[in-house]
Amino acid sequence: MSPQSEDFSAWYNELVVKAELVDHGPVKGTMVIRPYGYRIWELLQADLDRRIKQTGHQNAYFPLLIPQSYLQREAEHVAGFAPELAVVTYAGGKPLEEPLIVRPTSETVIGEFMAKWISSHRDLPMLLNQWANVVRWELRPRMFLRTTEFLWQEGHTAHADEADAMRETMLALREIYTRTARDLAAMPVIEGEKTPGERFAGAVRTFTIEGMMRDGRALQAGTSHYMGTNFARAFRVQYTGEDGHLAHAHTTSWGLSTRLIGGVIMTHGDDKGLVLPPRLAPYQVVIVPIGRGGQRAQASSAEASAGEVRAVAAALARRLADAGLRAHVDDRPQLSPGFKFNDWELRGVPVRLELGPRDLTARSAVMARRLGEAKESIPLESAPERLASELETFQDFLLERATAFRDSRTVITNEWDEFTKAVATGWARALHCGTPGCEAEIKAATTATARCIPLDGEPESGPCIRCGLPSAYGKRVIFARAY
Amino acid sequence: MSPQSEDFSAWYNELVVKAELVDHGPVKGTMVIRPYGYRIWELLQADLDRRIKQTGHQNAYFPLLIPQSYLQREAEHVAGFAPELAVVTYAGGKPLEEPLIVRPTSETVIGEFMAKWISSHRDLPMLLNQWANVVRWELRPRMFLRTTEFLWQEGHTAHADEADAMRETMLALREIYTRTARDLAAMPVIEGEKTPGERFAGAVRTFTIEGMMRDGRALQAGTSHYMGTNFARAFRVQYTGEDGHLAHAHTTSWGLSTRLIGGVIMTHGDDKGLVLPPRLAPYQVVIVPIGRGGQRAQASSAEASAGEVRAVAAALARRLADAGLRAHVDDRPQLSPGFKFNDWELRGVPVRLELGPRDLTARSAVMARRLGEAKESIPLESAPERLASELETFQDFLLERATAFRDSRTVITNEWDEFTKAVATGWARALHCGTPGCEAEIKAATTATARCIPLDGEPESGPCIRCGLPSAYGKRVIFARAY
Repeated sequence: MSPQSEDFSAWYNELVVKAELVDHGPVKGTMVIRPYGYRIWELLQADLDRRIKQTGHQNAYFPLLIPQSYLQREAEHVAGFAPELAVVTYAGGKPLEEPLIVRPTSETVIGEFMAKWISSHRDLPMLLNQWANVVRWELRPRMFLRTTEFLWQEGHTAHADEADAMRETMLALREIYTRTARDLAAMPVIEGEKTPGERFAGAVRTFTIEGMMRDGRALQAGTSHYMGTNFARAFRVQYTGEDGHLAHAHTTSWGLSTRLIGGVIMTHGDDKGLVLPPRLAPYQVVIVPIGRGGQRAQASSAEASAGEVRAVAAALARRLADAGLRAHVDDRPQLSPGFKFNDWELRGVPVRLELGPRDLTARSAVMARRLGEAKESIPLESAPERLASELETFQDFLLERATAFRDSRTVITNEWDEFTKAVATGWARALHCGTPGCEAEIKAATTATARCIPLDGEPESGPCIRCGLPSAYGKRVIFARAY
Repeated sequence: MSPQSEDFSAWYNELVVKAELVDHGPVKGTMVIRPYGYRIWELLQADLDRRIKQTGHQNAYFPLLIPQSYLQREAEHVAGFAPELAVVTYAGGKPLEEPLIVRPTSETVIGEFMAKWISSHRDLPMLLNQWANVVRWELRPRMFLRTTEFLWQEGHTAHADEADAMRETMLALREIYTRTARDLAAMPVIEGEKTPGERFAGAVRTFTIEGMMRDGRALQAGTSHYMGTNFARAFRVQYTGEDGHLAHAHTTSWGLSTRLIGGVIMTHGDDKGLVLPPRLAPYQVVIVPIGRGGQRAQASSAEASAGEVRAVAAALARRLADAGLRAHVDDRPQLSPGFKFNDWELRGVPVRLELGPRDLTARSAVMARRLGEAKESIPLESAPERLASELETFQDFLLERATAFRDSRTVITNEWDEFTKAVATGWARALHCGTPGCEAEIKAATTATARCIPLDGEPESGPCIRCGLPSAYGKRVIFARAY
């Protein structure tokens, strides 16, 4: 595998396949998510779904195929998505009268039904979420990050007024996405608003969580949009207020996808392979039995046989599972312990336990952590408690390490030269005039783009880092190269 | 709503919409699954997914869009599915060189990847499952039962030989599908094998679970297929055995879909609406507070106010939730208690609790069961334990009632006249010659089809119920009109 430091991109592309997270699908830009990768998605899903429900949203399911005319009802929306659409023109053996779009996102079809279901202020807020696959044709695909088909959840809500819709937009961003990113993925994301040029097609305001990858680039890991009444007008989502007057609803949408798995890989991985945060690891602990081969079973009678080692390994795995840990015994007979050690390091398992005949005699196992501290012998007796504690420590450590890395690669600057150096290896916080033309010039000169206007930014103003005109937004903007 | 006994079909079509399970989608034959319907699916999913994982399967995800050439590699498969396919011909703004099929099922694309992942007998069995949406163009759609798009799980497995693949085929049928149908959906399904004419396109043997609906028709509620080496040959799924020789794998597939929700509705529902088995009910208990209106709050000081009733209702709901019950307080201020009673009966809630000022004084609530026994006052103190027990009793009762109904409408017969009467209102168990032409004649004469050859059938032979030729299969076949 290519070293991360030499060719980050090659490292990533090779790793996702070697670690058996994905395979390249038959159609350009599609991916097969293999069981090891899909389990990470399931763990993410479970946490997100819990937060989505706890905040009052209900899951529903809307059709995959959307009449072309629906997309055309919101002008900016169709303009933004037109180049990426996959179109069904034949079905049931015949050409269709109206072509059908394979959903790239579901604002339009959900707008159509919200219009049907909402009539009174009592029907608001309407808080829906959908788990689904979507298709956006990708010319420069990359596994997890930009794929022709991906899995996601899309929240869609309708509200009586702007204040309630904005409260929802921020709730999805801060109470759902940021928390899942930090608490599960150990990604210290920055919350911010997109500049007008980076808004979702059809939105009034777009908010994002941005993570820093280990090559210093930014990854947009989740977005939350306030749509104003744009979609409500296009689909006639109206309600009668308490005062008896008819008004348009204010809507929001927010999505988080399998892309986040790419973020986990690029936030924590290293030259040896994946480094998985314990809360997202399919296996948190892998036990490697180290027995003498069956053909050498005539070991000294004081030493345990390979069969005894395997039995103790299985019993230990059961005790770990009973304690709520995801444990796995690697008992593949044809592979050497050394091969297995490398394999599980590649696949990012937080903790490995080695268990051999001598360990059995001592009622202990050898613990090896994924991030390289010296191996340590631990008693089998207290292994469940000890490992639970090790995993918590490891989870916290990953978030701290990623935060320190992010901060070390972020530069607050008012000088163009310093700015260009900063975005070559990380992020720059700079003042900007807010004009799209100037953003485009910065991109042409550095390949960096405006990632977001951070919510936590201090009030500040001054000349634009690029053109010197007075700054916009009342605070600094984060610029970075991005995925 | 049309009475069930007068027009079963109209009753069903009106009920699924009125109970807010679904709405008709914009494209013919598609459905929008609303939160109340989707929650039933989530409860089914959780149980199925647990059983699927406990029996050693892993979830994965394969692409939605399948190259047309893949489907063409297995001749029977493409012949069976060709009339139902939706085809993407444009994508990314251009015509595609090769049309892409929106998956109707995933044997082909999964076969392609099993061929890549399997090389040694050590890679077998390979036990995969996928949760996904699929598209089959429907000319006579009906919500849940036959929709152009539906949600399902599809298990796909590869094995070293026929014996192991058949063991898997039966495990999916008997240990996964039958148990979920009986234990969650309270559907006393019959397990059996399909006759050759009813086999899955490309399968060597197809097994099914069949449920009896309240109009006496049969519903195929889940199927499990042994593919032999048909797909393995088409996609070159081969392995090197322990003896060093190359052999084709034997594969299986098995699927259960949102169709099962239609089965629940038609197995238990009545003129008042849905009757939901507690284990599948989004709300197991609905609490209806019966307060005096706010405008009449000057009630006698001994009686509780509407606000106090609502507070006690909320506290009770929390206690029920803590006890693991799904409880909901219907506090919609604009609706009368009577309207709410009818509404929750329509929506099939197993138990309703009515809570008014006098109940508060007595520290009790009035319990009404969905299936019409007299109302009963129960103490609030012990409500969680009492309701948990009522729900268990209700779950068991539904299975017993459906079993008794099924048995009362099933006739063992050797006479054609009796056969035609039996299939007009239920099922007939009859001997059959096994020829497709004779099956077609029976269908033309009665609209009944061979549903399955029951696994539990006693050995028996004799003349065919229709043509008098010697019977096949060594046992009776179940015939019925079907969905």
